[in-house]
Amino acid sequence: MDYLPRPDDTRFLLHEVLDAGPQWRALPAFAEVDDALADQVLEEAGKFVAEAIAPLNRTGDEVGCRFEAGAVTAPPGFRAAYQAFWQAGWPALSADQAHGGQGLPAVLEAVLYEWLSAANQGFTMAPGLLHGAYECLKHHGSPELKDRYLARLASGEWLATMCLTEAHAGSDLGLVRTRAVPQADGALRVSGSKMFISGGEHDLSDNIVHLVLCRVPDAPPGPKGLSLALVPKVLPNGQRNAVSCERIEEKMGLHGSPTCVMRFEDATGWLIGEPGRGLAAMFVMMNAARLHVALQGIGILDAAWQKASAYAAERRQMRAPGATGPEPSPIAEHPAIARILDTQRAWIDGARLLAYRTGLRLDLARHAEDPKTRAASQRWCALATPVLKAACTQQGFEGASACLQVFGGHGYVREWGIEQHVRDVRVAMIYEGTNEIQAIDLLVRKVLPDAGADFSAMLLELRDELDASREADADAQRRLAQLRYLATSVALAAKAQPRLAYEVADDFLRVTALALLAWAWARIEASAADDTRWTQPAAAFRRWVLPEFDMRLTMVKQAAQAVAQSAAA
Amino acid sequence: MDYLPRPDDTRFLLHEVLDAGPQWRALPAFAEVDDALADQVLEEAGKFVAEAIAPLNRTGDEVGCRFEAGAVTAPPGFRAAYQAFWQAGWPALSADQAHGGQGLPAVLEAVLYEWLSAANQGFTMAPGLLHGAYECLKHHGSPELKDRYLARLASGEWLATMCLTEAHAGSDLGLVRTRAVPQADGALRVSGSKMFISGGEHDLSDNIVHLVLCRVPDAPPGPKGLSLALVPKVLPNGQRNAVSCERIEEKMGLHGSPTCVMRFEDATGWLIGEPGRGLAAMFVMMNAARLHVALQGIGILDAAWQKASAYAAERRQMRAPGATGPEPSPIAEHPAIARILDTQRAWIDGARLLAYRTGLRLDLARHAEDPKTRAASQRWCALATPVLKAACTQQGFEGASACLQVFGGHGYVREWGIEQHVRDVRVAMIYEGTNEIQAIDLLVRKVLPDAGADFSAMLLELRDELDASREADADAQRRLAQLRYLATSVALAAKAQPRLAYEVADDFLRVTALALLAWAWARIEASAADDTRWTQPAAAFRRWVLPEFDMRLTMVKQAAQAVAQSAAA
Repeated sequence: MDYLPRPDDTRFLLHEVLDAGPQWRALPAFAEVDDALADQVLEEAGKFVAEAIAPLNRTGDEVGCRFEAGAVTAPPGFRAAYQAFWQAGWPALSADQAHGGQGLPAVLEAVLYEWLSAANQGFTMAPGLLHGAYECLKHHGSPELKDRYLARLASGEWLATMCLTEAHAGSDLGLVRTRAVPQADGALRVSGSKMFISGGEHDLSDNIVHLVLCRVPDAPPGPKGLSLALVPKVLPNGQRNAVSCERIEEKMGLHGSPTCVMRFEDATGWLIGEPGRGLAAMFVMMNAARLHVALQGIGILDAAWQKASAYAAERRQMRAPGATGPEPSPIAEHPAIARILDTQRAWIDGARLLAYRTGLRLDLARHAEDPKTRAASQRWCALATPVLKAACTQQGFEGASACLQVFGGHGYVREWGIEQHVRDVRVAMIYEGTNEIQAIDLLVRKVLPDAGADFSAMLLELRDELDASREADADAQRRLAQLRYLATSVALAAKAQPRLAYEVADDFLRVTALALLAWAWARIEASAADDTRWTQPAAAFRRWVLPEFDMRLTMVKQAAQAVAQSAAA
Repeated sequence: MDYLPRPDDTRFLLHEVLDAGPQWRALPAFAEVDDALADQVLEEAGKFVAEAIAPLNRTGDEVGCRFEAGAVTAPPGFRAAYQAFWQAGWPALSADQAHGGQGLPAVLEAVLYEWLSAANQGFTMAPGLLHGAYECLKHHGSPELKDRYLARLASGEWLATMCLTEAHAGSDLGLVRTRAVPQADGALRVSGSKMFISGGEHDLSDNIVHLVLCRVPDAPPGPKGLSLALVPKVLPNGQRNAVSCERIEEKMGLHGSPTCVMRFEDATGWLIGEPGRGLAAMFVMMNAARLHVALQGIGILDAAWQKASAYAAERRQMRAPGATGPEPSPIAEHPAIARILDTQRAWIDGARLLAYRTGLRLDLARHAEDPKTRAASQRWCALATPVLKAACTQQGFEGASACLQVFGGHGYVREWGIEQHVRDVRVAMIYEGTNEIQAIDLLVRKVLPDAGADFSAMLLELRDELDASREADADAQRRLAQLRYLATSVALAAKAQPRLAYEVADDFLRVTALALLAWAWARIEASAADDTRWTQPAAAFRRWVLPEFDMRLTMVKQAAQAVAQSAAA
């Protein structure tokens, strides 16, 4: 069975729990986006994803992309689907109306990409980089470059890539060697080899706009010497640029997306922004990109859940405890299977709420008139995004594997399509910054520098959105307070021993994720009344997911205490 | 790089920690197996695995098995390797000398299969079922059947299958429908369709001996109506039997092993044991088979660790905290990577010790002269085996995925071979009884029926092997005591609410696994002095693995208390 988006669930979280409409309508940019319009967009998005994208998922995996003599052919049906996708205006959903976009809130785009990833991650990789490239060019491009490329990136008529990684430069982009030599006409000659380039070459669109991290001559070593160049596949004069695809990778999954080794040989390009400011230009879109990766994890987990849940309702093996009569029970009634399914729903819906909140905050951070609101929103995005990227992709993988387990031996074979999800989602733990890098980003780069002040402010804001007279809210408040205290202890101990922060970063991110989920489920329960659609995963969250909070808290606390004691000794 | 067995590690665990030699030499069957002989066997096994089997692993995955018109061709090199394997006497390692075997202790066979699985699980599936079939026939076969098949199964000249699963009968074998109709000459006519049959058809050996779960006419429904038939691919008169392979499955991994749908159409077979005693006949080999699956998980994890460890020593990205100089550090020096690697070693070596202990106990349970020793050994095997099967295969998968993470993007592509391990090992969580079934086997079938008496006796025996004057030992003793108390609480609460046991079974198995690992690491540390080869994973175990013990303990305890309270109310 193919993935089916469920707009009602999203509407409940957006409107009933987050009260999203009034938040975006307070921004002049979205004053006219009423809830009915947003709902209609979600409804149409759901239909398009279900009808045009989801049915191609299996072909994408089984046929995959083909490489021949430098050309890459996407799986059958992908080009037609992509053409329909951009012509229907989906890539332009949140682009500015001035550039031909629809100017809708970022959270609606986030939902669209969640569903697209759930339906067909291989397909979704292609447009997935588009909006980031658009934002990057919009903020840092010269007027000439914008004239030439911005509208076509906004519409998705042309696709884009991010050419960062080189063989020796993965997490450490400071090691990038690709050279860009300025020419008399203001253009660059770009030379070098890039790898792991998603959509580096394909037949989905008529042009591909590469954003290439490179060094101009005499640039200092390390990250501060990096510039960003725009290098198109097809030059403005209609000729092919000196950019070629050397091969595509054989991967564990994601066969619908070509992962390319790209060679630039004196290719023509133009600087985006100042020389030496390449990373800054790319980081413009980082929070949005990481949020989308978090939603890939959750989306694919939801697709896996849908399959496992349907299978568990039909498949009968043995009598469940308490079952009457001689017939074997649907395995959904066996406690071990029910636990797997309910636990995944607890992750999916709790993480969705946090991700949608982040989508809302992305717009507030950009467009709010009140500087305090902008700062608070920016703070949330900076702190919550690495947490969601790491926690949601890890759960995407582990949860998809748990859903595979529901099928027994039938899960390990192609038949039901569940093992594809496990293979596809695994990459999300790696790209857009590995999950280990996310943990360091959170703790070392964002929490410690101000001794936890911003982090604490974010947690206090969450606390204030809860109602302590409700049991779940009071429990979440208690955990948020424990987490604040923990951040302070770690900040103190890390001063005595800087290595500590790197050692506990993964656990610190994880305990933060669980506290945020506790907040999310308290908020959901407050709106859910006694609807079992929400109360059942809420109960699963408390019983099966939340116990890890105390474990991680204790692990980090003990490590910090050990440092404090040895410093005092 | 290919997997390389490390006999020194195994020798340390067997001799220094477990003092294995004197244990098996106390049995008349192994009185003459001195340590030097055992070491020589391990040394030769290591060489054979490294030279003949490991190099075929990648071909097994990439070329896989081919199906054409009912015939299955194994990947290139597999037939020659298998012929060399059996002709060198490896399948006969622990078979009786009376049947042409070498009569060596089962623990040596367990080590051999650990290494084989680590080197090439696809290959290892073929002989992996051999010893179980041999034991089954040895204990339950008629003299005529033994005459015809036993020596050839002992030597491995002919391979064997277990034909259990049918499309509608997976975990619930009581639903098996395959019919076996007795004939006047004492033979059976067997008809039905079986699926997920590993090695159901191939070109590795000249004959294949199928052990088929089936029903004779008028058998009662459910498991008590099941019989076991021996159905050879080639009949004694040299003709092909009416057994055919309909297709092989497309799987997530394990491409080197053909997973077959088998059709029996009035095929000729013979009963093994009494009608209606089919499950009992198969269960003879269940503990050994599950132990081998546990060691698959650990072996493949070790192979993944070897790759990740070598990569992390070479790959340089960014400066590690505390590093001096401008050069990027080997990623092994980054705390997040060191943690991944050390944590896997903690699992591998701790689990090995428990598995080797189980291998020793399998022989004691069979051969010890003292009935008390036999009973205690049987108790250990019954209780520890499901724990190891579930915990080691889960860690095999999650740990192999963690090792993949060490490679960053390079882990997600074929290049380094690490993603194959993740795909291959996933099936071990499913077959030979899913991990959820193992948990139910432990708690519902083995701990609860005597209110935890046997379980408690096993834990007390472990306690008595520790020396409370050592810190690690005292800590392990404390956890064993907590676990004993927990078992009693669950047994009490489960009387009031039988469903409870099914709800907490997974956590109960997990907390048991962690207590056993705490015991194992206390024992290892006592022998390791200050050798960092062992003290480093010991430290990682305490810091990163053991904290889960308290979490699971609390989860189970709270569930039991909730039941007790509601029963009292």
